[in-house]
Amino acid sequence: MDVVEIKEAVDKAIENYLYEKEPRLLYEAVKYLPSAGGKRLRPIIACLSCEAVGGNMMDAIPLAVALEIIHTFTLIHDDIMDRDEERRGMPSVHKKFGDNRAILAGDALFAKAFEILSHTKDAEICKKLTRNLAIMAKEICEGQEMDVAFEEMESVGKEEFLEMIEKKTARMFEHAAMNGAMVGGGSKEEVEAMKVYGLNLGMAFQIWDDCLDVIGKDIGKPVGSDIREGKKTLIYLYALEKYGGKIPNYGKKDATDEEINEIVEILKETGAIDCAKNMAMEFSRKAIDSLAILKESEAKNKLVEMAEFAVKREK
Amino acid sequence: MDVVEIKEAVDKAIENYLYEKEPRLLYEAVKYLPSAGGKRLRPIIACLSCEAVGGNMMDAIPLAVALEIIHTFTLIHDDIMDRDEERRGMPSVHKKFGDNRAILAGDALFAKAFEILSHTKDAEICKKLTRNLAIMAKEICEGQEMDVAFEEMESVGKEEFLEMIEKKTARMFEHAAMNGAMVGGGSKEEVEAMKVYGLNLGMAFQIWDDCLDVIGKDIGKPVGSDIREGKKTLIYLYALEKYGGKIPNYGKKDATDEEINEIVEILKETGAIDCAKNMAMEFSRKAIDSLAILKESEAKNKLVEMAEFAVKREK
Repeated sequence: MDVVEIKEAVDKAIENYLYEKEPRLLYEAVKYLPSAGGKRLRPIIACLSCEAVGGNMMDAIPLAVALEIIHTFTLIHDDIMDRDEERRGMPSVHKKFGDNRAILAGDALFAKAFEILSHTKDAEICKKLTRNLAIMAKEICEGQEMDVAFEEMESVGKEEFLEMIEKKTARMFEHAAMNGAMVGGGSKEEVEAMKVYGLNLGMAFQIWDDCLDVIGKDIGKPVGSDIREGKKTLIYLYALEKYGGKIPNYGKKDATDEEINEIVEILKETGAIDCAKNMAMEFSRKAIDSLAILKESEAKNKLVEMAEFAVKREK
Repeated sequence: MDVVEIKEAVDKAIENYLYEKEPRLLYEAVKYLPSAGGKRLRPIIACLSCEAVGGNMMDAIPLAVALEIIHTFTLIHDDIMDRDEERRGMPSVHKKFGDNRAILAGDALFAKAFEILSHTKDAEICKKLTRNLAIMAKEICEGQEMDVAFEEMESVGKEEFLEMIEKKTARMFEHAAMNGAMVGGGSKEEVEAMKVYGLNLGMAFQIWDDCLDVIGKDIGKPVGSDIREGKKTLIYLYALEKYGGKIPNYGKKDATDEEINEIVEILKETGAIDCAKNMAMEFSRKAIDSLAILKESEAKNKLVEMAEFAVKREK
């Protein structure tokens, strides 16, 4: 199956699994974000990983959908905590439905994820998936806690920062790949290789995401929201080291485009952007290397392409 | 095992399962409520139900603890939504740790519940438990949504009210009893009987809880918080029917003790309190009746006692 077909199968499964209608307002809030589309990266990775070890990707659909639903639930609760009013170009769930219903919609989605996961045919694998995804969800909470705590800290170590994005973002890619391979009946070595693939892909993906916020002006994307928020990204942490002292206007909410450009220039001159880009590319390379033990297949090629795409994409 | 020993085993298991320490503030918020004690009713029901069908109650410990942890998680999120500042005589989690960390602590507990559940030995049973508890958690969200919506409604039908407490409270008792029996290897008929027991016990428990808020003055408990909040309890809905028109001062935040007494008198005179008490006792009786098919045992006697206690307790 190609990626478009996988995405269609996932979209359809999401619609089928989210069958509830009442109480109406709750389920409008529950379905609002999952139905709005999105790249479905995590489900696609789970399905491809299942196929790449010789499994039937349809067996990985409960896992794939559960991952997407957990991802959605974390977005809804994170947006409440971060007071973000937009998501995927629409009002965020709490902006549209209020904080209370957004908390509840997130909780209901979290519950749904485990209901969906229990549709996994093999009971032994279902038990392992339940355990793995529960631990993953807990670590996402730990990552979010670190992220929130960083906001109030003067400075953050690069090690700590990498631990935060590993937990908050990369762990989910790791579980998509690793558990997809497990569902597909992969050997211990294959499952381990896919774990390494997923983790490194997730790191590449997140670090590149932070780069896009800064280098976006070269590729026609609005730039600087992390800068205006004063977010402690890897680029900022690198630059802080080299610049020696605080970077002027970093975190200024109403910074003009000119001020943003000046900051981007500093980030460039310190070499921080190149450092981060290189690190993302390094993670991407490690992800691709880990696939070496897999037999050649269409699915393996797609996994390589995804790791390449992670550090090439412009949005 | 007697109830005190079960409670000790549950307390110890909660401590063992909640082993995480970092990030420190997150896990302080996570452990704050589960470590504060509580009646542990749901775990006790799960363990007794397991024993009552001939099982070993230690097999039900993961289920028992998962239920208590899900219960705790719903309390934390409900307290945020209801802006309740106290819980079990202490500041509520959001009052002590802030809204953001309380949302996150609830989420982490929800994740932990499924991690704990995955310690259930038998994989087939683990799969069923995952599915059952996920659907239960979803229904608790639906019940909370109904409860929140009722606040803004002029009047609520008694049927709707009963559906709300069934989902928000009784369903969890149902799952404790039914799944406890399943873990214990109960027959289909025994599991069905325990399901009926749990549901009716839960209804009795919740309706009696609402009565305690009103009749508490006879037994030395502070009275009237539901009245001051204007909560649409079963008693209120009964009284509204009989009284013909709004009850004066019901929902007055700063009502004096004298005004509260006047309202309690109206609730008494309309027969609403007796109606609710009778209904609670009827549910308790149904719970006890459902146990008829079980063989005589110490555990069965304890389950009978719990259903009697539900409508006798004074706090």
